[in-house]
This record gives sequence, structure tokens and C-alpha cells, in this order.
Amino acid sequence: MSKTLAGNAVIGQSGGPTAVINQSLVGCIEGLRGCDAIGRILGARHAVRGMVENDFIELTDVPQGRLDRIANTPSSALGSSRDKPDEAYCREIFQRFEENDVRYFFYIGGNDSSDTARIVNETARREGYELRAFHIPKTIDNDLECNDHTPGFPSAARFVAQALMGDQLDNAALPGIKIDVIMGRHAGFLTAASMMARTRDSDGPHLIYVPEATFDLDQFIADVDRVYTQRGRCIVAVSEGIHDDEGTLIATKLADSIEEDAHGNVQLSGTGALGDYLVQLVKERLGARLRVRADTFGYLQRSFAGCVSEVDQREARAAGRKAAELAVEGMEHGSIALVRTGEDPYAVDFQRVELSDVAAKTRTLPREVIVDGCDIAPSYRRYFEPLLGPLPAIEQF
Amino acid sequence: MSKTLAGNAVIGQSGGPTAVINQSLVGCIEGLRGCDAIGRILGARHAVRGMVENDFIELTDVPQGRLDRIANTPSSALGSSRDKPDEAYCREIFQRFEENDVRYFFYIGGNDSSDTARIVNETARREGYELRAFHIPKTIDNDLECNDHTPGFPSAARFVAQALMGDQLDNAALPGIKIDVIMGRHAGFLTAASMMARTRDSDGPHLIYVPEATFDLDQFIADVDRVYTQRGRCIVAVSEGIHDDEGTLIATKLADSIEEDAHGNVQLSGTGALGDYLVQLVKERLGARLRVRADTFGYLQRSFAGCVSEVDQREARAAGRKAAELAVEGMEHGSIALVRTGEDPYAVDFQRVELSDVAAKTRTLPREVIVDGCDIAPSYRRYFEPLLGPLPAIEQF
Repeated sequence: MSKTLAGNAVIGQSGGPTAVINQSLVGCIEGLRGCDAIGRILGARHAVRGMVENDFIELTDVPQGRLDRIANTPSSALGSSRDKPDEAYCREIFQRFEENDVRYFFYIGGNDSSDTARIVNETARREGYELRAFHIPKTIDNDLECNDHTPGFPSAARFVAQALMGDQLDNAALPGIKIDVIMGRHAGFLTAASMMARTRDSDGPHLIYVPEATFDLDQFIADVDRVYTQRGRCIVAVSEGIHDDEGTLIATKLADSIEEDAHGNVQLSGTGALGDYLVQLVKERLGARLRVRADTFGYLQRSFAGCVSEVDQREARAAGRKAAELAVEGMEHGSIALVRTGEDPYAVDFQRVELSDVAAKTRTLPREVIVDGCDIAPSYRRYFEPLLGPLPAIEQF
Repeated sequence: MSKTLAGNAVIGQSGGPTAVINQSLVGCIEGLRGCDAIGRILGARHAVRGMVENDFIELTDVPQGRLDRIANTPSSALGSSRDKPDEAYCREIFQRFEENDVRYFFYIGGNDSSDTARIVNETARREGYELRAFHIPKTIDNDLECNDHTPGFPSAARFVAQALMGDQLDNAALPGIKIDVIMGRHAGFLTAASMMARTRDSDGPHLIYVPEATFDLDQFIADVDRVYTQRGRCIVAVSEGIHDDEGTLIATKLADSIEEDAHGNVQLSGTGALGDYLVQLVKERLGARLRVRADTFGYLQRSFAGCVSEVDQREARAAGRKAAELAVEGMEHGSIALVRTGEDPYAVDFQRVELSDVAAKTRTLPREVIVDGCDIAPSYRRYFEPLLGPLPAIEQF
């Protein structure tokens, strides 16, 4: 292991944008800037696509003030991609890396992206190309293995909590049954965070459904009926990834055409179909005259400008910086994991883990926090509280 | 006109909640508190419904600190209603008013609510019941006659702008065609406010469709095709109230069952159907493999906790206080109108207008700001700027 590997660095941002993914980009740049061995710092436009197409943004000398403004801007400033590189794709990447004397590779993304970093790293080693390859965690789904939580999640969770705080007050003013569809294909963390909207016992959401539990349509109707009978209103938070006992997504039961991305993921966001389906079901089973509405939070929850967790901002920056520091110090590859080391006061440590321990794996909600398949245990608030930060004060008559 | 009419006061909040309707409630309470003639201050639960059912909240001695927290809480703290009182309904209201010695009636709401205030006022006069009846303006639709803008609108418009700021960056990172459906049945102010998301020429929204212009499906497809061909992406902001040249709502063309409220309004919010329909249309006409998505902002835009215009907060409070002051001073009835009296610096005046000048009328976007049926004139930013306040800073490569 040559400690002072000289060369240029490439940084890419992959997968779905978040409110703080640019913090990680800027943290990584800051971590590289102090090092003499690093020549140029290049940002790959649209992730691996920019790497094969030689489409780079020069980041070496961007003034600090501009970097700070980029860091505070939501979405992926370099552009993103959902391409999943195969062997041929990777060989093209190396050709460009050699042409550009790239020896440092940082890839900010979720579990699909960590798998991309793993493939690039392993191909580099097989081809005898000396490369330092790091994955920097990012996903609003909060589903990366080895992590207590992942940058991007706290801000998205904060959006969900603030949305539900307002929405459940709206529903208290004009009572009815309201269904809110929240992102989360396999992991229900974001939907579970809706529990943070409650400021007193009667507050919604009254029912929370996550992909970790089987979604039974009859049970759902019975749950809604029970809450509505008791309270005269009912707020439901539901993950887009809910599925029946055979694992079939409820959302795909009604889609005319199923769209899949390069990773084989079915499109769940950017459509109100699941919410509308559940509304129709409730009306058919409980009464056509009931006031039943659905909102699908969609892309707003990951990129809304001006709704961000300060803890998330700091941690995303620190994760990017940590990856750069480890690479500069001579570590050849890895992913950065956020490990909670203190509860009161809250503290977090940034630890190196193996790419293969994170790549293409999915962490899900602890089983024990799911109550009766339709709620989250009140004790789980303690997990969310330090991540989301102080929420708006609510006062009710 | 007896200047010192002694009696109790009733305040109600009607129609769709907003982020600042509680500011108007608290402003009204503050305006009444200093007056010896006012005995009790009662809040009607769920608007006119609470008035006939004798369901009141005692507001006379609520401590100021609690009032301030109520003021800063979104949605209608008293509860709301969409009931439209007829003559019989109004006679019931008077019976309760007499029982409770109510001589001051304040109704916070939109154009349907101002019509309710007008009916109550006129019935009171016909029945010889001395009553001071005031409408306090509130609507995110911004569609009240005589007003430059209405409390609730600036905060909702701010939400729309912040949502589009993030969403158009998200779309720049992962390009495609994105359709955002925004509230607005007859007036396109809220959808037009999406223009505030642009920080440079290439930013979205690239197309804006409001109910004041005819929506032609063929022209829409041609517009999207043109923008997408030029930019490789396209963000569309569209009002839920878009309609064809015969006035038929596009949203109702595809609904299985149409739901109407007591005012004869078709349900447009709380469903993703319009967005999903437009997505399917774009895919059918421009290519099934295109990445086309829709989000429907739904109830989030009117009640989101923690996204509020400070100007809106102040003005909503002042409008409530003004109504109380006029009533206490001896004015018998009226509505409060917000009139812009200064541009730089921005200034607004709160003026009394006749209930009949506002009731059940709809103000719409000035014709001249609609450009080619698919955009808003850049000069119209000056109308929105002081209302929304400073937006999050955006930096892009």
C-alpha cells in the first residue's frame, strides 16, 4: 500500500437525490484539498455516465463560498444516474481514469451505488489498476447495512414529520379518512417517522403501515373502520412498498404497465395510483359518502428546498470528509458507516466498513418496533428525535 | 347605529385550513379584548355547525402565550366546515346567538365563507336582530375580489415555490418529464407562483398551465415535446382546475365518480388522478420509454408545518384585528380587504369593503400575465416577491 498515491480524484453522486447529498460532495472535496498527492478534483456529471463519457466538472479550485452554497442546495449538483455498470462499462471507466490519471474514486449513494463502487473497485484490482475506491452513504430510505442511519434520511424524515403535523391538523379541522403515501420500497423507516407528527394521544397518524409487515386489505379496512368509529377521523401513513403475504406489491396490483429501472426496481414514486386505489377501497367497503382523500408525498420528500435537519447536514458533510481522509491516509477501499455511540447526549462515529458488507444489501426496521402490523412502538421516538431535530411547536384547543 | 353594542362575540373558521388562519383568529381575539362592551369571546367548533349545535370553545381568558402558540400552528384550531347555511340554518344560528347574547360575529374564510357571512348578516337584519357581522379573508386560492392578495396565499405560494425549487433540481439530476399538480380550481395564482422557483433561465418550471387559459391536450403535448427536445428535460406546473375549451375540467374527464361538496364544488384534491392521466398521455404520445412522473401537492401545500411566509403571518393577524376593531367602533358589517399601497418598500392597507362585493365572487389572474397559454410573464415575479419573502439560496454548477 503506497501511502502517498499521486493522482487525480473523481467524485460521483448516484441514485435518488437528497437534501444533503451536496454536503457529502463538499465534505469530500474539503477532505482532499489539503493533500499534496491529489492533483485535480473532478466531479463526474451524472455519475458513472460522466465517467465513461469523459464529462467532468473541475472542482479543484471552486471557491469555498461557492462550495458552501452548493452544500446547502438540495439535489445532486453533479447530476445523477441510475445506470448499473457491468464489466464492459467498468473497463470504459478505467480507460477514462487512466487517461485522466484518476487514482481516487468516491461514489456517494445508496445500496445500489455501494454495489457499483464494489464492482468498480474489484474490477480495478483484477486489472491491476491502483485505485482507492470509497462509497459515501446516502439514502432517504435509511436502509444501508452497518449504519445506525444514513445521510439524507433525517431531512426526508423531517419533511414527513412536518407534513403529517400539518396534515393531521388539517384532518382534525375537516374530519375524514386521509391516506398519506410515503417513499420506502423495502424499508419503512421514512413512513415510521410519521409518528413524530404526534404531539398528543389523539393526534394522527392513527395507523402506520410499513413494508416489513404484510399488508392485508381486509385487516386494513377493519383497522380504518375501528379508528374512524372511535375518533370520527383517521389518518393513515403507508409506505409505497406495502405488499401482500405473497410479497406482491399492492401498487403493482393496479398498474396498467409496470416500469422498471436498470436495477430491476419497479417505479413506485411519481404516481398517485396506490393512494387512489386505497381511497376507492375504503369508499367501497365503508361507505361511498365518506370523505376519503389521499396524498402521495412523492419527490417533494427528498428534495424540498428549506426543510432540512441540521444534524443531517453536519453528518453528511462529515461522512464525505471522512472518506477523503481515509483514502488520503492510504486506505484502499471501503464505505463510511454512521454508528451511534451516544444517546444522551447524542453522538455518532464515522467508521470504515467493507464495501461488500454494505453493497446491495437492505437494512429494515427492527421487527419489534412494529405494533400489530399497523403502528410503531412509542419508544421508537427516541431513535428519531436527535436525527430530526426540534420540530415546529404545535398548540391545539 | 349604537356605538357601544354590549354582548358576546362568536368567531368561526370556515373552508379549507391554511398555515396562518389561526393568526387571524388570534388577531380578532386581541382586537376584541380591549373592549368593555364585549362579554365573552366564543370560538365556534367547526364553523356554522358549532353555532347551531351550541358547540363553543371559551376564548375570553386564554393566556396570551397560548394564543401566540395557537397563532403559529397551521390549520384551523377551532375546526372547520364546508356547510353552506340556508335560511333555516341561519334561523337556528340566531336562536343560539340570542341564547348566548351574541352580538358580534366574525367569520374567517374564502369566497364561499364571505357569502355565508353575507347571508347571516342579511337574515339578522331582516329578523331585526342587531348583529355586527364581519368576514375576515382567508384562502390559499388568492381569489377574493377587492384584495391584492389574501392571507394564507403567501404561505401556500411559498410552499409551492420551495417544492418546485427542489423538484426542478431533482429533475436536473435525473432528467425526464415531471408534472406537478397544484391547487387552484378557478384561479391560477398558486400555480403561477411556481415561477418563483426559477433562479436562472434554464430552470423549471418550463411550462405553467392555469385555469384562466383553455387547456388543449394537443397543444400541451406539443409544448412538452418542444421543451424536452430543447433541454432534455421538462418540468410542468399545472393547476388542478385546468379545463378544455368547453369549460369541462380535465380532471373530471377521467374520474369514475365525481364527488361534490355542499357548495357544488367537484373534488379535485386528495387524488393523483389528473397527474397520472397527463403522465399516461405524454407516454402514449411522445414515447412509452420516457421517464415521466407526476406529483400532486395536495393538502401539504396548505397546512405544512414550518413553511410559512412571515409577511403572511403578520397580515393575517392584522386582518383579524382590523375586523374586531371596526366592529367595536360601531361598523355593522363588512369584509376586510388587503390593498397594496406601496411597492418599494412594500406596504399594505387593510380596508373595509361590503360583504356583497366579495361574497361568492372569484378574482382570477390578470389575463396579460399569461404567456402563450403555457407560462407566466417574468415581470409578475414582482407581485409575488414581497409576499413570499426570501427563498432558500440555490447554487448550481
